[in-house]
Amino acid sequence: MNYLNATKAEKNALYGTLRAEYDALAAQGLSLDLSRGKPSGEQLGESMPMLGENCTLRYLSENGFDCRNYGVLEGLPEMRAFWSELTGIPAKNIVVGGNSSLNLMYDTLSRAMLYGVAGSPRPWCREEKVKFICLTPGYDRHFAICESLGIEMISVPLLSDGPDMDKVEALVAADASIKGMWCVPKYSNPSGITYSDEAVRRLARMKTAAPDFRIFWDNAYMVHDIENEGDALLDLFAEAHLVGNGDRVFFFSSTSKITFPGAGIAMMAMSDANLSLALSVLTVQTIGYDKMNQIRHLAFLPDKAAVEAHMKKQARYLKERFSIVLDTLKRDLGDTGVAKWTAPRGGYFVSLDVLPHTAKRVYALCKEAGVTLTKVGATFPYGVDPEDKNLRLAPSYPKTEDLALAMRVLTLAVRLAALESLLA
Amino acid sequence: MNYLNATKAEKNALYGTLRAEYDALAAQGLSLDLSRGKPSGEQLGESMPMLGENCTLRYLSENGFDCRNYGVLEGLPEMRAFWSELTGIPAKNIVVGGNSSLNLMYDTLSRAMLYGVAGSPRPWCREEKVKFICLTPGYDRHFAICESLGIEMISVPLLSDGPDMDKVEALVAADASIKGMWCVPKYSNPSGITYSDEAVRRLARMKTAAPDFRIFWDNAYMVHDIENEGDALLDLFAEAHLVGNGDRVFFFSSTSKITFPGAGIAMMAMSDANLSLALSVLTVQTIGYDKMNQIRHLAFLPDKAAVEAHMKKQARYLKERFSIVLDTLKRDLGDTGVAKWTAPRGGYFVSLDVLPHTAKRVYALCKEAGVTLTKVGATFPYGVDPEDKNLRLAPSYPKTEDLALAMRVLTLAVRLAALESLLA
Repeated sequence: MNYLNATKAEKNALYGTLRAEYDALAAQGLSLDLSRGKPSGEQLGESMPMLGENCTLRYLSENGFDCRNYGVLEGLPEMRAFWSELTGIPAKNIVVGGNSSLNLMYDTLSRAMLYGVAGSPRPWCREEKVKFICLTPGYDRHFAICESLGIEMISVPLLSDGPDMDKVEALVAADASIKGMWCVPKYSNPSGITYSDEAVRRLARMKTAAPDFRIFWDNAYMVHDIENEGDALLDLFAEAHLVGNGDRVFFFSSTSKITFPGAGIAMMAMSDANLSLALSVLTVQTIGYDKMNQIRHLAFLPDKAAVEAHMKKQARYLKERFSIVLDTLKRDLGDTGVAKWTAPRGGYFVSLDVLPHTAKRVYALCKEAGVTLTKVGATFPYGVDPEDKNLRLAPSYPKTEDLALAMRVLTLAVRLAALESLLA
Repeated sequence: MNYLNATKAEKNALYGTLRAEYDALAAQGLSLDLSRGKPSGEQLGESMPMLGENCTLRYLSENGFDCRNYGVLEGLPEMRAFWSELTGIPAKNIVVGGNSSLNLMYDTLSRAMLYGVAGSPRPWCREEKVKFICLTPGYDRHFAICESLGIEMISVPLLSDGPDMDKVEALVAADASIKGMWCVPKYSNPSGITYSDEAVRRLARMKTAAPDFRIFWDNAYMVHDIENEGDALLDLFAEAHLVGNGDRVFFFSSTSKITFPGAGIAMMAMSDANLSLALSVLTVQTIGYDKMNQIRHLAFLPDKAAVEAHMKKQARYLKERFSIVLDTLKRDLGDTGVAKWTAPRGGYFVSLDVLPHTAKRVYALCKEAGVTLTKVGATFPYGVDPEDKNLRLAPSYPKTEDLALAMRVLTLAVRLAALESLLA
């Protein structure tokens, strides 16, 4: 039944039925979690060979360097080559970090605040105002970095094929205080969409009023396909260099969702000019990242072919869970007219739009029934979803039977909240 | 022969003899390095059991948390307890970091710049000027952090029992722009001295004009005794809390010179107020440090007793090398009157003062003969030793036979440079 066309009597009757079903589930004392984009224990198990002595006892790099000791700030040559093969970016432009690409992103932005970037008239903390474009729905931790550093966030919609480029181009051309933007270009968090070639080309080419505008390109899900044929993403690093805007791109990725979220290998890549400035600070900031973890990773996953084979195994667990989510959404909400969702071909999230002004109510109903969702508003700057309609679903972590149960609760909550709103 | 009392003829004759000896060594095409405070391969070998499957396959923390996954920003409870046992600081005041305590120090200071610390009227980057007291000779990487962040450095001598406290007290009482100071309180880098109880008490109690003055207490060598009975260091964290100045202390340490320099576990400790502010930023900066490395370390070194037993093994390698250094210095320079040095009971360095205005010449002579020393001036702010006399010797890394050879070159260079200066 399409709720929007239903009579009041029909809605009332339906509400009673659904409420009874919801109450029965709520009475079970569930404790389920759809909020965290964490790999499941089964996924992590696939990387356990990396902790065997075949991998852990190595400590000499290919050029004979002892990885146990100090040094090699920019990362082992073979690890930079590994990332180069995966990303297509020259190894000389790659720095290998610690276990957290978020940390590299925060540090890159705080470096910009304290020192400026290549081409900055002054450190960004000395500017009257610094603004960033934030695509919505988007990744809460990107927004949190801006908020923490006092950077004003401007929301621009993320469409089904990338940023609303007309809006982005108009904004960055007009306002020199807009110094950057956040992007998750492949299997975007949370909507799962991948930027079109045209969007990437326009990002590389657009005119910016700020001479030191930067795109923080968080390619977290670059090899995280669920379907056999993954989405293709154009190489922004190459595109930007092609048109003389190479300094525009700060590229980030990690193995957090390839091997271990808490103990992976992060990387960043940038133009020669950007890198030389970054390294001049990095060499003061740290004595070098953990090279033993680098060599251990390489022993387990020596190249792109090994990563792709490994990711096929990961995909099985994710596909099973994404199917549960998408099947339940279709079955329970498909003809209601009160929900829209994405069907990503990779990544970790499904973005669900419910009837405007009911997302918080959905969250509360789920909570009452023992199902934790990502906080409503998390996918928007300052934690405020202006339409109160977007929910981020993270199906990777729960066991499949728990996930199925949680999804039943969720779709009941979506329908109940919609009916309450329509009946009010 | 005491060179200062020798006749010109004596000095000329001696110069000829020593020069011939030096030339013969220089002709050998040596390539030796006394510049880096790195553990030797033998030392690193003592930690290899940590890379066996007994240690590497563990991933569940004591409370059942999966260390492979995201989370536990402040560090595993058992790792905080480990550091608490080692330092005497309550576990609740400890944050476990990545592999680099230098990184924690830089981040702590850059946080102060961007956000201020507990009690700051404003972020330090908004102050007209920020100054730090730097004890000399001291650790070049501390100075580099200040220089990078635009913090003005004020040199104060480090005496044989700690900072020149009369000078320190006078400076911090008079100048509110002095916001902090760097200390390596035990086996100080490079002189190897340990602060007296009185020095620690005065640091805890001194009046500071700045309401947000901070001591960066880099306790890098807390368990790094070479002799059976190590130096005792008073607990500044406790002392400062005792007199109501608990917020004054930022405490740092690491296992870099316990297990692996490149893949150890760093920590920091601070008062409740400081920690709450630091965590509010850390939670934005990173998703958490590498807990797999934490649990691996705990499997290898579960407690203080294990650390102490392990450090006894490390001490053997260091004692052998320190003896070569000190014996050679005594034999070759003992009665010359042109050199003074420290005889540390732990740590990684020996500080050598040569005849004023000859250190750079010593460096050059060593270099010509294939022996690399730490750059002259590195132990002073801005890389300038005003008297051009201090050399930092780092004996830990070379093989013993190489070290003996390098020390022969060094003492020849010291004598030649002194004679050149006295004959000029």
